[in-house]
Amino acid sequence: MYISVIEYDARGYQERECGTIQECLSLPRTRAVTWLNIDDATRAEVLEEVAKYFPLPAYVLEEVSTATTERPQIITLDDHLFIIVNMLSLNPQTYEIEAEQLNLIVGRGVVLSFGEKAGDVFDPVRDRIRNSQSRIRKLKADYLLYSLLDAILDNYFAILERVGEIADNLEDEITENPSTDKLSVLHDLRSQMLLLRKAVWPLREILNSLERRESPLITRETQPYFRNLYDHAIQVIETIETLRDTLGQAFDLYLTSVSNRTNDIIKVLTVISTIFIPLTFITGVYGMNFENMPELEARWGYAAVWGVMLLIVVIMLLYFRRRRWF
Amino acid sequence: MYISVIEYDARGYQERECGTIQECLSLPRTRAVTWLNIDDATRAEVLEEVAKYFPLPAYVLEEVSTATTERPQIITLDDHLFIIVNMLSLNPQTYEIEAEQLNLIVGRGVVLSFGEKAGDVFDPVRDRIRNSQSRIRKLKADYLLYSLLDAILDNYFAILERVGEIADNLEDEITENPSTDKLSVLHDLRSQMLLLRKAVWPLREILNSLERRESPLITRETQPYFRNLYDHAIQVIETIETLRDTLGQAFDLYLTSVSNRTNDIIKVLTVISTIFIPLTFITGVYGMNFENMPELEARWGYAAVWGVMLLIVVIMLLYFRRRRWF
Amino acid sequence: MYISVIEYDARGYQERECGTIQECLSLPRTRAVTWLNIDDATRAEVLEEVAKYFPLPAYVLEEVSTATTERPQIITLDDHLFIIVNMLSLNPQTYEIEAEQLNLIVGRGVVLSFGEKAGDVFDPVRDRIRNSQSRIRKLKADYLLYSLLDAILDNYFAILERVGEIADNLEDEITENPSTDKLSVLHDLRSQMLLLRKAVWPLREILNSLERRESPLITRETQPYFRNLYDHAIQVIETIETLRDTLGQAFDLYLTSVSNRTNDIIKVLTVISTIFIPLTFITGVYGMNFENMPELEARWGYAAVWGVMLLIVVIMLLYFRRRRWF
Amino acid sequence: MYISVIEYDARGYQERECGTIQECLSLPRTRAVTWLNIDDATRAEVLEEVAKYFPLPAYVLEEVSTATTERPQIITLDDHLFIIVNMLSLNPQTYEIEAEQLNLIVGRGVVLSFGEKAGDVFDPVRDRIRNSQSRIRKLKADYLLYSLLDAILDNYFAILERVGEIADNLEDEITENPSTDKLSVLHDLRSQMLLLRKAVWPLREILNSLERRESPLITRETQPYFRNLYDHAIQVIETIETLRDTLGQAFDLYLTSVSNRTNDIIKVLTVISTIFIPLTFITGVYGMNFENMPELEARWGYAAVWGVMLLIVVIMLLYFRRRRWF
Amino acid sequence: MYISVIEYDARGYQERECGTIQECLSLPRTRAVTWLNIDDATRAEVLEEVAKYFPLPAYVLEEVSTATTERPQIITLDDHLFIIVNMLSLNPQTYEIEAEQLNLIVGRGVVLSFGEKAGDVFDPVRDRIRNSQSRIRKLKADYLLYSLLDAILDNYFAILERVGEIADNLEDEITENPSTDKLSVLHDLRSQMLLLRKAVWPLREILNSLERRESPLITRETQPYFRNLYDHAIQVIETIETLRDTLGQAFDLYLTSVSNRTNDIIKVLTVISTIFIPLTFITGVYGMNFENMPELEARWGYAAVWGVMLLIVVIMLLYFRRRRWF
Repeated sequence: MYISVIEYDARGYQERECGTIQECLSLPRTRAVTWLNIDDATRAEVLEEVAKYFPLPAYVLEEVSTATTERPQIITLDDHLFIIVNMLSLNPQTYEIEAEQLNLIVGRGVVLSFGEKAGDVFDPVRDRIRNSQSRIRKLKADYLLYSLLDAILDNYFAILERVGEIADNLEDEITENPSTDKLSVLHDLRSQMLLLRKAVWPLREILNSLERRESPLITRETQPYFRNLYDHAIQVIETIETLRDTLGQAFDLYLTSVSNRTNDIIKVLTVISTIFIPLTFITGVYGMNFENMPELEARWGYAAVWGVMLLIVVIMLLYFRRRRWF
Repeated sequence: MYISVIEYDARGYQERECGTIQECLSLPRTRAVTWLNIDDATRAEVLEEVAKYFPLPAYVLEEVSTATTERPQIITLDDHLFIIVNMLSLNPQTYEIEAEQLNLIVGRGVVLSFGEKAGDVFDPVRDRIRNSQSRIRKLKADYLLYSLLDAILDNYFAILERVGEIADNLEDEITENPSTDKLSVLHDLRSQMLLLRKAVWPLREILNSLERRESPLITRETQPYFRNLYDHAIQVIETIETLRDTLGQAFDLYLTSVSNRTNDIIKVLTVISTIFIPLTFITGVYGMNFENMPELEARWGYAAVWGVMLLIVVIMLLYFRRRRWF
Repeated sequence: MYISVIEYDARGYQERECGTIQECLSLPRTRAVTWLNIDDATRAEVLEEVAKYFPLPAYVLEEVSTATTERPQIITLDDHLFIIVNMLSLNPQTYEIEAEQLNLIVGRGVVLSFGEKAGDVFDPVRDRIRNSQSRIRKLKADYLLYSLLDAILDNYFAILERVGEIADNLEDEITENPSTDKLSVLHDLRSQMLLLRKAVWPLREILNSLERRESPLITRETQPYFRNLYDHAIQVIETIETLRDTLGQAFDLYLTSVSNRTNDIIKVLTVISTIFIPLTFITGVYGMNFENMPELEARWGYAAVWGVMLLIVVIMLLYFRRRRWF
Repeated sequence: MYISVIEYDARGYQERECGTIQECLSLPRTRAVTWLNIDDATRAEVLEEVAKYFPLPAYVLEEVSTATTERPQIITLDDHLFIIVNMLSLNPQTYEIEAEQLNLIVGRGVVLSFGEKAGDVFDPVRDRIRNSQSRIRKLKADYLLYSLLDAILDNYFAILERVGEIADNLEDEITENPSTDKLSVLHDLRSQMLLLRKAVWPLREILNSLERRESPLITRETQPYFRNLYDHAIQVIETIETLRDTLGQAFDLYLTSVSNRTNDIIKVLTVISTIFIPLTFITGVYGMNFENMPELEARWGYAAVWGVMLLIVVIMLLYFRRRRWF
Repeated sequence: MYISVIEYDARGYQERECGTIQECLSLPRTRAVTWLNIDDATRAEVLEEVAKYFPLPAYVLEEVSTATTERPQIITLDDHLFIIVNMLSLNPQTYEIEAEQLNLIVGRGVVLSFGEKAGDVFDPVRDRIRNSQSRIRKLKADYLLYSLLDAILDNYFAILERVGEIADNLEDEITENPSTDKLSVLHDLRSQMLLLRKAVWPLREILNSLERRESPLITRETQPYFRNLYDHAIQVIETIETLRDTLGQAFDLYLTSVSNRTNDIIKVLTVISTIFIPLTFITGVYGMNFENMPELEARWGYAAVWGVMLLIVVIMLLYFRRRRWF
């Protein structure tokens, strides 16, 4: 478990690390906004500790402690918010999208974010806090919540853009050479999109709930920011749908390219076979050992056979040309 | 028919078995909640017996006694609830999902559950009742209803997860070797998903009705639990849709893999044929028995033919290489 | 035209046949409910006759007398109802679903049903009327309407179940041997489902209108029965959609099975060709008539050629085995 | 430009032709309803002339005079209606559906219809006006509007029925012999359906607007007729969707039939090749010119080779039979 | 950066160019409407300059200055509007649709339009302003906004029409000769449509917002124009969907055409092989060197073999004819 605290307001900010959650939460708060970020901790562990400060109702605790994977959701309580979202990362080797659940608890003047893995996408937010001129320093905890969700959505866009690029490259490669490994990558990307859609879809409702200011923690001042964020979520969903359609079309393209290549290969086979099989038959005829074969003794016999064979080749080639086979 | 009764409240609990339904229902109830579970009994049998205790209106009795398979539904009466849901199990050999209808009648302080087959998914609920510290012991019959429905939904998740794993394995195997038996399994899974969707879809309405507390039997205290359950049902439906898309994509993958293999096989055929058919023609030419074939007598004739044939092979191989056929 | 009348109430019932509609309608009604059923009559004929007893507005008469096929619909008038539905039957040979339009006119204490063909699906209703203990004898004309519509819907279920069985059998046969006649049956079933969907869809609105008691002819007592019927119509529509998806998947299966078989056949061709074409080339080489071919005179020549050829066969077989072609 | 006028009421009717629109419009109106029909005139021309009698607002004039093709729409003004719909015709040779825009202006007691081409689908309406007993003679201009729109929709049904027949025939022919020209027809029909859908869809809104009597020109008396017409439009749209699905399925059928035929052809090739290639190899072996080939001198050699070859043929045939290849 | 200003009202108009935005904005406005058009400038640059005249709230500035590509959107402020739309152009060589973001700021009597590239689609608007008789000269800034958006939508239609033509040509070419480069074009067009849909979809909401007059800048007089524009946007979206379906069908056609051609090619191969392989076998038989082959010495031997071979050819041809292979 790794716990960091950032306290800030318009006048200044402090960053600190704590050994335990208790220690962090019991410190006197001197700034307007306190942001606790806990990495590398299971949700059960954290919730147990923070239960005194952010009392979640029994059914929520039961729910979140038993379920292994959680649908993103928002639980709006009287004086705080509990939000579960997915933080995504794209494994550059396997093209696999990995999801980490991020839990956010927002109270008056305090935001608590915690996830199971180390590393997050919040560095731009930290940079902005450190900059005394930035808007975040002048606003409240709800703007910090907005900033964190915005960083997560920005990361979604980055991943989708990367997937879009991979898909574009794949398409170009497929038309040139539809090999099996490309099929595999294509199929994996399609499966990823299905999972992604499932992961992102509930976000819409979460942001819609925030925009409608169902919790008193969201001030009228930050409302347009959340409306903006909601628009972004819609855009993410549309982009996923467009990518799914794109990948589906790439699959069609793959199948059609394979058909095309099979067609080409069979064409080669047919041209060669159709030309040489009759010729071979002719040579077979004059390779027979009948005693009474007048052509064999004729002086022009051999030359004539070559003539006939050349004629057949020419006719065949003309036929293939007319059928536009090459 | 096998009948078990569990009575419980915060102070204690009793488990008992009864010979007949009558016997069970006529016992004095000493605890806050009584749960009757009847296995291995047809619905008609049970309803006949319980009709005096839970008077269902005529049209309900008519409906449930004539229909063989029933759509999940909820019938909200003045002082009790009649709920029909599907309990699913996945046959590990055939990958077939088998449905058993589970009927629930809920009255004040009493829940009656009955199904036609032996065995159910309620052991976790029983364990929680036996534990004197668990929430279920402190709450009413509506929480028991929630717990039973929750156990059924948890079982759905388990089955879908298993199907997801099977589908993932299938996909890997398909890319390697698209054999006919895998096609069969894939097709069966797809058909299963169609049936599952039909079975689960009405659950949404049932849970929505419970969440909206259309029956006075649902207390305000348990309402968030049912809301939660409704979210789970949505999640089950989304998971089924995602699995359907996944299996549809696996089908695409199968078809494309077969095309790919056909392509590979034809490539081998074409390479071999295209190389040897012209060579065989050449040997045919010099196997002819014409008297006047100057090449045959030439000292370098045989060697020259070998030379020409090798040249053809080299040209062909270069051609195939350029076309990236191997 | 064949006209039968059944009059009944809780105390008794009479069945009768009439020569003309006039005759039937002018009889004194002694029982609470009168059911006239007319077979084998065109709608125009019947409407002309009944116009005095059930005055339909001009636009309705115009509509129904000009149109040849009619979308199921309900026309709610002040004191009677005019309902058009489809009665279906599955031709067991051609697997074709045949529709017959059934017209229902409901007034106070009287139900008039008429269709163009002989035969209907109402025998269960007749049996229940004859049974003095059945609910139908105690209730009004609206319950008779419910019973007739219920019989029609039950018939839909029976047909869909039969189609489901045919589809299941087809799927099994397709994986074994995808022959052309199965393709034909499959395609016909799919087309049937499209027509069926079109025929059943408007039923939903009709039953919804009845359930909402838009006509005063529907009593509060029968309302739950119509709600039930509405649920059944939904179930019919869902079953049709599921069957459509099932048949679509069977089509996919067919196409994939054909691809699989083509693959198998080409594999055989390729194995045989790839083994024998090089061998035949070798025999061709030593069948050439060059004077100067040292191998031919060598003592071990013939044996050596056999050795080489066997070696080639073995190598080829190993290659095919490694590629898992057999 | 060809202008005809029909004036009628319950007492009588007059038909007339005019040289110019001005002439027509300035005639004294002696009957309750006046119907001006203008063929073979561009919209711009007509609108310019009628602008004084039916003042359309500036944005409407601008819109309709600049756009070349127009989406069907209704413009409801204070005292008249401007309706644009498509009149369709099916070219019997090319199976192409051709659309002609029909413009309708409805005022008190007057209907003005005009289109660019000669010929329309309104002859049944004219016949009804000429018949003194028909309902149209007793009703107002709004009923004439209904009759015209009804004639257009009837024409849609006729075209869709014709397309349905063509599709049915195509399907039968495809299963027998999937030739390229049938593919072409099938594809054209599919494209037509897409265009048709686009052309018909807005009609729904137009008829809905009329049914809701958004214009005072529609009397309560004609309202049920427009409701009826709206139902017809829905039916047209459903029929188009069903036809689209039918044609999509016919396409599937085509693709599958081609696969089936390819399979059959390859089967023939494989059977012939697999039988004769090994035999030809054997003849090749004994056609070699090695000096030391003991079999050649054996008395039973030739007969034995024939025996072996017959054996191979029999084995092959049994193998193919077992695999059910013929 | 290239800045042009057009000022106009019913009495006259001036066109001017400015060096800087400042210069433009600080000029005294003498006419009712001022239109500033800035080409070849990044949004950040422009917004910085105009911030004093059109104060955009902080979150808008933040949003637009960080995002690289923007979803079309409308931001309705108290006294001005900020609109982002896409201006499209179709690259005639690559068939690629290129999007340029166009930003519109509308205030009382002033419209500011700016985009990053040189060139726009507003020449028809400029022509109309120059014409003293045109409606635009008599109306306000909101009508100018309408005219600009209308010009952009008109351009969409032009592009879609062009894509439709390309698609039609492609379809004809595909049936004749399904080559790989056509597949590529087809696939690119499909991808373009996906992007286009994503680009155009939000336009609907923008125009809907304008039509509902959510901003006081839109007068009641121009409202019907915006309603009209909204209808056009719907039409654009429908056209895109229809084109997508058309291109999807063209893809089906391509795949089927390739299958057809493969079928044809295999037919040729099979006919040639099936005729000549048995013949070659026969010649092989009589090419064997057995000593004891009575046929070889028979006088009629050679002629008889030719007879048998001709017979085989005739039988084969009859067989192929019966199977309708040519």
